[in-house]
Amino acid sequence: MRSIGVVRSLLADRSEAPRQPDEDAPAAEIVLDDDVCPALVGIEPGDRIELLTWLHLADRSTLSTHPRGDASRPLTGVFATRSPDRPNPVGLHTVTVTAVLGNVVRVDGLEAVDGTPVIDIKPSLGGLGLR
Amino acid sequence: MRSIGVVRSLLADRSEAPRQPDEDAPAAEIVLDDDVCPALVGIEPGDRIELLTWLHLADRSTLSTHPRGDASRPLTGVFATRSPDRPNPVGLHTVTVTAVLGNVVRVDGLEAVDGTPVIDIKPSLGGLGLR
Repeated sequence: MRSIGVVRSLLADRSEAPRQPDEDAPAAEIVLDDDVCPALVGIEPGDRIELLTWLHLADRSTLSTHPRGDASRPLTGVFATRSPDRPNPVGLHTVTVTAVLGNVVRVDGLEAVDGTPVIDIKPSLGGLGLR
Repeated sequence: MRSIGVVRSLLADRSEAPRQPDEDAPAAEIVLDDDVCPALVGIEPGDRIELLTWLHLADRSTLSTHPRGDASRPLTGVFATRSPDRPNPVGLHTVTVTAVLGNVVRVDGLEAVDGTPVIDIKPSLGGLGLR
């Protein structure tokens, strides 16, 4: 796997990042590597996309967790949660494109911190239908 | 990134795989590596999950494609399509769990071929709500 770009965000570290995208995550920019820019053709403002990231600050040895960090909840396998701590810390974020400017894609509410590597972008089937 | 398991399916190669999961994809099994089994706790029949795979047969040099292999459609960047051919060929499959038996998770309609490496399992936010 390779990094295809990076998240630029006002979120500086994990303690600031909301746990879910509907919890006041800020707008952010995806700055893509120049060589993959042709793969953006067809992405337009208003599109719903699945942004896949590599959550580089995660603990990859974690196999179970208390959901949402709440110790009163029963210990749960990480595959049944959205915890970033998991064997392969791939972040999956459904966001809306607000602008495409060269190699920069602006999106609304994204809960990934500044500097998070980007690994893929796909159309959201919920929002766009099949292409 | 590491493989956490493998898809076992009647689909032997890409020519047999439907392009979208609603097109008669067969049931399949996800056979997880023993060491990650604790991460399955909480996954139950009926759960909708996002299964992330590594589409190992894909062409990683492809940046644009005719959607759905239809040459009459305009050439489109792969990030605006669900083509498996893309810089990081991560497959994203929303499927329903039908059984969990030790390290084996049975799912309904999955369009990945037999032997596809599995990289992550997450609850589908559309189906389960937030955990």
